[in-house]
Amino acid sequence: MKQVYVNGGYTTKFGELWKRDFRDLGVEAAVNAVQNSKINLQDIDVLYVANMAASHYTGQDHLGALFATELGLDCPAFHIEAACASGSAAIRAGFLDLLSGSSENALILGVEKMTDVNTKNATEGLSGASDEEWEAFYGVTFPSLYAMIAREHMNRYGTSHEQLAMCSVKNHKHGTLNPDAHFQKEITVEQVLRSPVVADPLKLFDSSPISDGAAAIVMSSKKKSEIRLIASGHAQDSLALHDRKDITILEATIKAKERAFKQSKLKNKDIDIMEVHDCFSIAEILAYEDLGFVEKGKGGQFVESGDTQMDGSIPTNLSGGLKAAGHPVGATGVKQAVEIVKQLTGKAGKRQVQKDMKYGLTHNIGGSGATCIVNIFEKI
Amino acid sequence: MKQVYVNGGYTTKFGELWKRDFRDLGVEAAVNAVQNSKINLQDIDVLYVANMAASHYTGQDHLGALFATELGLDCPAFHIEAACASGSAAIRAGFLDLLSGSSENALILGVEKMTDVNTKNATEGLSGASDEEWEAFYGVTFPSLYAMIAREHMNRYGTSHEQLAMCSVKNHKHGTLNPDAHFQKEITVEQVLRSPVVADPLKLFDSSPISDGAAAIVMSSKKKSEIRLIASGHAQDSLALHDRKDITILEATIKAKERAFKQSKLKNKDIDIMEVHDCFSIAEILAYEDLGFVEKGKGGQFVESGDTQMDGSIPTNLSGGLKAAGHPVGATGVKQAVEIVKQLTGKAGKRQVQKDMKYGLTHNIGGSGATCIVNIFEKI
Repeated sequence: MKQVYVNGGYTTKFGELWKRDFRDLGVEAAVNAVQNSKINLQDIDVLYVANMAASHYTGQDHLGALFATELGLDCPAFHIEAACASGSAAIRAGFLDLLSGSSENALILGVEKMTDVNTKNATEGLSGASDEEWEAFYGVTFPSLYAMIAREHMNRYGTSHEQLAMCSVKNHKHGTLNPDAHFQKEITVEQVLRSPVVADPLKLFDSSPISDGAAAIVMSSKKKSEIRLIASGHAQDSLALHDRKDITILEATIKAKERAFKQSKLKNKDIDIMEVHDCFSIAEILAYEDLGFVEKGKGGQFVESGDTQMDGSIPTNLSGGLKAAGHPVGATGVKQAVEIVKQLTGKAGKRQVQKDMKYGLTHNIGGSGATCIVNIFEKI
Repeated sequence: MKQVYVNGGYTTKFGELWKRDFRDLGVEAAVNAVQNSKINLQDIDVLYVANMAASHYTGQDHLGALFATELGLDCPAFHIEAACASGSAAIRAGFLDLLSGSSENALILGVEKMTDVNTKNATEGLSGASDEEWEAFYGVTFPSLYAMIAREHMNRYGTSHEQLAMCSVKNHKHGTLNPDAHFQKEITVEQVLRSPVVADPLKLFDSSPISDGAAAIVMSSKKKSEIRLIASGHAQDSLALHDRKDITILEATIKAKERAFKQSKLKNKDIDIMEVHDCFSIAEILAYEDLGFVEKGKGGQFVESGDTQMDGSIPTNLSGGLKAAGHPVGATGVKQAVEIVKQLTGKAGKRQVQKDMKYGLTHNIGGSGATCIVNIFEKI
């Protein structure tokens, strides 16, 4: 079987980037990722653009053609959309392309411009990731969907507000060490608990922000780096939250993880570091559990234990996660991959985890859990 | 190398389907394509959804998850967007997936609901396929882009209004034989010339309609049919028309064709039948030329010669093309594939071409030519 190497990666600054536009951000990420990979733009033979909502926010579709044009690429270009998991879906599509032998060097670009856009507000744009007819139409928003999950998790397993808050506190702490993060200041559990309620029990500081940003990686079937993408598990669940048997479980995470572990022949204990999808604090708790790092219901205790801190047994969201690094939707999954590559290669600067690491995992969710993609990277 | 077979296909009726919704159309096409392929829905191990503008028209993104849910599929699902070439892009993505060995049975579903939607009008939605900042923002619409191409083609090569009209007349004639076509009545050259001007020189009857519809195929690495997808050429050009050296040439068509011919080791003379992208009559003329069936500038004479009629040397758009069969954007490329499969297997009913045929080609354009995908099917 062919091997797929990750040769270069880059993320722009994430944040409210009022002076930057959609194209500009994408080009910065793509050009720098290609430079980091030590090849030329002309050597790229396929482009995968991950984006959720440019159609809403800027009226622009046809994003493969757009960025092929902006980058001067003479190769096929696809636009892949899987809501907030678009970035990882594009990585997976590129992975399949390289495995098929059709391409040798794939550029994966995730990009989203969510502030300073004129057509629709961000919440309305994001509602397209939920079931428009059976959720959004009735006024359900993403904070409210995750709030229902959080409430049931608290009721059933005794998960506390404080435990939820600890996810945000940890991720903000990591974010202070990431110069590209949207937020680079520490917060306390008290501050989270005192922040305004968005959808009870979730507070403002339980919620990831609306961000602008882009991230890109170059993957290749030719070895030019010490990092391989060795597995990509991808699974779906019902689009609407109310169609699921148990809203405290994201079945798509369980299935995507099982598929990725089967493909890589790895187990939880092999994973040295991970980036998980913390669009809301409860989502990080669910990720711990559904990825199998702790039993269902023990996620709150897991964050409390410090195991997912920078110096813990399974350091999680060193980038700052979605909460502190920011969540420019289409870019998020690609940024997760860039972070894992940096960590595995010892290039993560101040937030570099100080241990010998071989395997890193990214976990990226679309909507309230209808899509999950788990990618596993190996340092060879 | 693995082989990719097309085991089943289906298109819904195309048209102004006021009683049908987006999901409903997609489900009808998908379920019937799976039935035709003689496998069960549970055997599908990846879903590719092709759609351009549900985000505009219905506010719904996350279309992989949506249709996985609606169809009860427990497999990965992607949404692929490449403007009006989304359908062929999804077929190509499925092709790569099967070639990689990651999946065995891929369901490709193209769907678009363009009438009776409440958020934006169709022209505004479609403008996302052009360069939003440098074309659409200034008021340029698709009819006007193709009108500029047509005007220059007429000036330079003497292509006549009558020749443009003959494309529509031919496709309407074919459409009368397709019970799923949007329009099923013949028109005359005179009627085309007398129809209202949309963007001079293009008239209403030079233009494909706004349609609802869906089409699906099942592709498999296991042989269950006599049809193989043997090549998929995919190329890009600048997104904006004004960035091209010569607006009478769609370079992306030339490159996509060359790539598909190289992959299949075929030449123009080997192709027995084709479906080409006639969003406007001039686009069919360009397709003849840029695909290499005639010299540049001779496309008008080619349609006049009758070579692309049902009984001609290279029967073109037997489905009725985009003009008469309709153009539900995301469905179009998949419908082209379904038509070629029907023709090659002798199942095209009244519009069955009466000759021995081995190779069929589909040609699908995104925007004003920024994307082109050419797929070639073989009867084995």
